[in-house]
Amino acid sequence: MTTNAPSDRSASTFPTCLGGKFLVFDGPDGSGKSTQFHRFAQYCSSRGQPVTEVREPGGTLIGEHIRAVLLDPANDSMAMRCEMLLYMASRAQLFEERIVPALARGELVLADRFTSSTLAYQGTAGGLDCADILAVGKVATGNRWPDLTVIFDVDERTAASRLSPLLDRIEQRGAEFHRRVREGYLQQVRDCPDRYRTVDASRSPDEVFSELLGTVERFFVRA
Amino acid sequence: MTTNAPSDRSASTFPTCLGGKFLVFDGPDGSGKSTQFHRFAQYCSSRGQPVTEVREPGGTLIGEHIRAVLLDPANDSMAMRCEMLLYMASRAQLFEERIVPALARGELVLADRFTSSTLAYQGTAGGLDCADILAVGKVATGNRWPDLTVIFDVDERTAASRLSPLLDRIEQRGAEFHRRVREGYLQQVRDCPDRYRTVDASRSPDEVFSELLGTVERFFVRA
Repeated sequence: MTTNAPSDRSASTFPTCLGGKFLVFDGPDGSGKSTQFHRFAQYCSSRGQPVTEVREPGGTLIGEHIRAVLLDPANDSMAMRCEMLLYMASRAQLFEERIVPALARGELVLADRFTSSTLAYQGTAGGLDCADILAVGKVATGNRWPDLTVIFDVDERTAASRLSPLLDRIEQRGAEFHRRVREGYLQQVRDCPDRYRTVDASRSPDEVFSELLGTVERFFVRA
Repeated sequence: MTTNAPSDRSASTFPTCLGGKFLVFDGPDGSGKSTQFHRFAQYCSSRGQPVTEVREPGGTLIGEHIRAVLLDPANDSMAMRCEMLLYMASRAQLFEERIVPALARGELVLADRFTSSTLAYQGTAGGLDCADILAVGKVATGNRWPDLTVIFDVDERTAASRLSPLLDRIEQRGAEFHRRVREGYLQQVRDCPDRYRTVDASRSPDEVFSELLGTVERFFVRA
């Protein structure tokens, strides 16, 4: 999907080799992924690679309405299957309205969370069957998947120490839940080594960013 | 699922034989199904069969929030996959919060629309693959399906003549869309003759109700 790339762009040079690619940054709450997300987007765009940034849940007007239902602490009787399907609905809208057109324009699409979050939070940690989630995810995005998902891995105590005391409905869940979330991400890395990479997110932001750049470059350029 | 039925209830007498059963009334907008729905519920409860009535989309607090997103004419850029998943999310909540407990209490659950609507509106008429919708529907309700779905069949001209000029986002779609909706319902009846029945909804409310009673009784008592 790099057919519309400008002619002065070298497909073998990092980060302009990322045109038409779909990258997901994911990990537990408190992993620092959102900080790295914005820094990586800035790094790419300042070096000539146009970036479309999207975040989940939300990222579209309709998705923001869905996000409001999902994160309202008043909705604490929400069934796990309902929660999972709401994330998928928001994702389907985001995919069709923003991701597919941006990829077709030859941009790098960078997503803060995607189906990998649903597998970890509502699957491994929440108790839904991961095969069921993958079946729904396949329908939500027409069986198209990210080129690379980077997991920002951090133990739950370090993650908790970084979180605001003002927690939303998902973040309020306990330590055991968040331990299973982390395990859910690591299981995905083991299951799909050709589409996932991990970054050690327990270190300083500069160290994490350096490892991130090296990891992504190795995946796309030296693979 | 009739183990909690009162001891003075005969399982072979209509309509008390409907305890623990899950019935769906469905059909095109303007088929008059909602009128028949309320009349049938009243008929059953006045003859000793407790009824839980549910409607889609909505039927729960969370579902009403989802319903507001779905039916707002301002959300006209909604992707068909998003729309389908929002209906499924509302359905998953309704199923777990209201339908499963009511069936366990031995009540008749009567639903105004269910997965059959999604198959007709977003599938046959909307262009999504019906196999995809069934895959998501299976996850939304844990692979449990209605005992009987009654389709109130009416041609699109008769249906249109019954609709209010104040149409919501779905009802605003054109005549060809509504013709395909009807075809979608009839296709389901052909595909699943053991779980579907049709009623001719073009006639007077009294005639339709009489046919409905006979159809349901034959399905459950004389089957």
